[in-house]
Amino acid sequence: MTNYSKYRGMMRKIADIQYASAVLNWDQETYMPPKGATFRAQQLSTLAGIGHELSTSKELGELLNTLSSDASLSEKEKRNIKQSLKNYNDNLKYTTEFVQELSKTISETFQAWQKAKEVNNFALYAPHLEKLVELKRQECKFLGTFAHPYDALLNQYEPGAKTADLETLFTDVRNQLVTFVKKIAAKPQNTDNFMFLQFDKTKQWELGLDLLKQMGYDFDAGRQDASSHPFTTNFSSEDVRVTTRINETDLNEMIWSCIHEGGHALYEQGLPSEEYGLPSGEYVSLGIHESQSRLWENNVGRSLAYWKGNFSKLQTAFPENLKSINFEDFYKAMNIVKPSLIRTSADELTYHFHVLIRFEIEKALIEGTIEVKDLPNYWNAKYKEYLGLDVPSDSKGVLQDIHWSHGSFGYFPTYSLGSFYAAQFFNQAKKEITDLEFEIEKGNSKPLLDWLRGNVHQYGKFYSAEELCIKITGEKLNFKYFMDYATKKYTQLYNL
Amino acid sequence: MTNYSKYRGMMRKIADIQYASAVLNWDQETYMPPKGATFRAQQLSTLAGIGHELSTSKELGELLNTLSSDASLSEKEKRNIKQSLKNYNDNLKYTTEFVQELSKTISETFQAWQKAKEVNNFALYAPHLEKLVELKRQECKFLGTFAHPYDALLNQYEPGAKTADLETLFTDVRNQLVTFVKKIAAKPQNTDNFMFLQFDKTKQWELGLDLLKQMGYDFDAGRQDASSHPFTTNFSSEDVRVTTRINETDLNEMIWSCIHEGGHALYEQGLPSEEYGLPSGEYVSLGIHESQSRLWENNVGRSLAYWKGNFSKLQTAFPENLKSINFEDFYKAMNIVKPSLIRTSADELTYHFHVLIRFEIEKALIEGTIEVKDLPNYWNAKYKEYLGLDVPSDSKGVLQDIHWSHGSFGYFPTYSLGSFYAAQFFNQAKKEITDLEFEIEKGNSKPLLDWLRGNVHQYGKFYSAEELCIKITGEKLNFKYFMDYATKKYTQLYNL
Repeated sequence: MTNYSKYRGMMRKIADIQYASAVLNWDQETYMPPKGATFRAQQLSTLAGIGHELSTSKELGELLNTLSSDASLSEKEKRNIKQSLKNYNDNLKYTTEFVQELSKTISETFQAWQKAKEVNNFALYAPHLEKLVELKRQECKFLGTFAHPYDALLNQYEPGAKTADLETLFTDVRNQLVTFVKKIAAKPQNTDNFMFLQFDKTKQWELGLDLLKQMGYDFDAGRQDASSHPFTTNFSSEDVRVTTRINETDLNEMIWSCIHEGGHALYEQGLPSEEYGLPSGEYVSLGIHESQSRLWENNVGRSLAYWKGNFSKLQTAFPENLKSINFEDFYKAMNIVKPSLIRTSADELTYHFHVLIRFEIEKALIEGTIEVKDLPNYWNAKYKEYLGLDVPSDSKGVLQDIHWSHGSFGYFPTYSLGSFYAAQFFNQAKKEITDLEFEIEKGNSKPLLDWLRGNVHQYGKFYSAEELCIKITGEKLNFKYFMDYATKKYTQLYNL
Repeated sequence: MTNYSKYRGMMRKIADIQYASAVLNWDQETYMPPKGATFRAQQLSTLAGIGHELSTSKELGELLNTLSSDASLSEKEKRNIKQSLKNYNDNLKYTTEFVQELSKTISETFQAWQKAKEVNNFALYAPHLEKLVELKRQECKFLGTFAHPYDALLNQYEPGAKTADLETLFTDVRNQLVTFVKKIAAKPQNTDNFMFLQFDKTKQWELGLDLLKQMGYDFDAGRQDASSHPFTTNFSSEDVRVTTRINETDLNEMIWSCIHEGGHALYEQGLPSEEYGLPSGEYVSLGIHESQSRLWENNVGRSLAYWKGNFSKLQTAFPENLKSINFEDFYKAMNIVKPSLIRTSADELTYHFHVLIRFEIEKALIEGTIEVKDLPNYWNAKYKEYLGLDVPSDSKGVLQDIHWSHGSFGYFPTYSLGSFYAAQFFNQAKKEITDLEFEIEKGNSKPLLDWLRGNVHQYGKFYSAEELCIKITGEKLNFKYFMDYATKKYTQLYNL
């Protein structure tokens, strides 16, 4: 057996443990009965511990060091080794005790968050979150020297990302997008009232499946279930699952979560299964992952062409609510810009103010300039400042998102990065795919999916996010593409 | 940390791995998309390997040996150590090569069995089963010296069971039950035709949940899902799940699978959660496990009192089929005795002929007095002899059950043991619980469930099956209780 095959075997074993954990997590958020939580937390912690032991074994380290100077490897193999060695060295910084403590704290914080959100009581959540923030601060310290401690966390989701770069980017968001949204607000507003009537649950469910199918999601390699917060997870590229949430008085939730999670899932289904467990079989970064969901959600799903093709399906499913709505008004409703409290239901412009707020809060929490107890007030003040809104309850404010309860600090910025990458990629796709908009209107997703498979999915982590962006579009991430897209589209929609 | 706490920690970790595998298996049988199968098999194999390594670690062996002479332990602790040391030494007898060979052969045999059953071709299955039988014969040899080689396999499911004792027991079954069933066959037969009309799936599902709830199944510590073969699984005593199968033209399947699996699940929910991972937190044996499912299914679920309380629910759910059926006829239908080809749908009397046949075949296979190629003819001759039936195809004959394809030889006899234990336990329960039948009729399961919790569930593996039976009923397993129960009930039902 060659050293590289030995490495491959070890990586597959580690992946087996991580994907087993993913199954336990999926079950926890979809079907697990409430009393199952305590032992589930322990089981996940044990798996995390074993995964960590394998990821930091002396044997793996020696093998990686040997392989890192093996000139006979292919370019892909070399990049896998380089990436795995980096991960290995990062993993070594975590003690088994820390990993298990973190895993257990996350499970408890998640349970506390669910309860706190349900009964609108931040105090139930605060002590768990405090413990978790403390662990994340420790993590920033032992991960090494960065220009900013928050960089250590950002890098877990977006390798290479820097707090300083994000500050520049979000300054653009603040300057350009705030001004643009104000221009929209000064115009006569469109309505989407008809999206908040009564929409049968089962019909919505079926429609969601149909939208996924149309995108090219492979139901033999996945399924859709219900959960309180929609997500995508995978246990290999041949078992990639999405969840959705149906709101009987808001048709938007199902539509946007299905298309969004579908975009994530198409990426995972498109990763090369023969590279299971290796960097070349994994997504580049969360920013690139989000570029896939946002591209389908916004650049495709909120486009004129998409609804020209799909509006009649909605009218057929819900004639009592939509038969009398004309297409123009419907398309406007799909693209209403209106400051709102909840990130996941925000329009594609004000969405970035939600991310901006979380970015500022996370940075301050990690710096230690604010504490967990300050969060509700701080949050509410920011929503007033950027969105002009009074937050009526913590459930609709600081408790709305799952991420912090999972210990995911540094994750939110990737949502904005994803939208900006999506705009840049889609701009390129339109140049390279003949009649892309017409294909979308016909409900034919194949040309676009093939393009994404060929340009993004197939490579796994072979290229970094920056390399990939340059390879596809000829330049680094550039906010200009998003602003161009937004300006063109909303100028027309709002007669600016 | 004391040695005993160290032992407890190691056992909990092993249990975490095994229960994680159980979650992956549950998902595989309920929700996993088809393409997920390949990597799922690999993930399960990795978990099994890690579980085996932990179960046979030198560290665990040394700890168990030290603890086995620790006089300061409580009686429960001593029994846990004794049991764990026995398991440890048994596990050591398996070489890694044998475990891998067995695991591989089982996967191949299982796949071959599925195909063979589907296309009704035993020859596709035979060569794989031959290899598997050969491995099981080897296993019997290296597991140690037993009075009969088949004992080694029986003991995996029913610790302490002996081939010789089962021969005596099944001689009673043959002599007494065959004669009794012939007496029934000579009488005018009852009908259950109305159980095979059209029964709405959703209504059946709801009814099943209601039956489980009435038994005292805790839905906060469990749930019901659909699968092609009903089963119970657990990931702790606080997450115990059942599955059922709904047949729209046979109401029996849902009813009996819900009550049967519910009985298994009540046992698991009743095991002490603080003993998680230790013998004192585990079921005694498959025979005792089956006693719990059979007690609810037959002694409760097929009783006059049970249907006095529940028949109206069925009539309300399915008035078109059941409104005109009188109660007496319905009760008779719940207890129809009629030789049939398929074990899983057999009545509670002829059921044991199915088990008897499998017991005789397994014994002969392990002894080497018959070979795999003889199975179809041997099977068919036995079905003619004991049930008076001509087997029309191997799919409805020797290929019907999954067990052998999984290498589970020695498992079937526990089904009969379970029924016989159930009759003996229920006889005692009736003596000790005031107005038990009246409580059942009222739909109040609490007195019986409390009795089972107090007499069976709470002890885990503290007592062996034989010790437990003596403790509860004052004597060892005695077939007389089953025959008394059967004679009294069916004499009345068939006017014998």
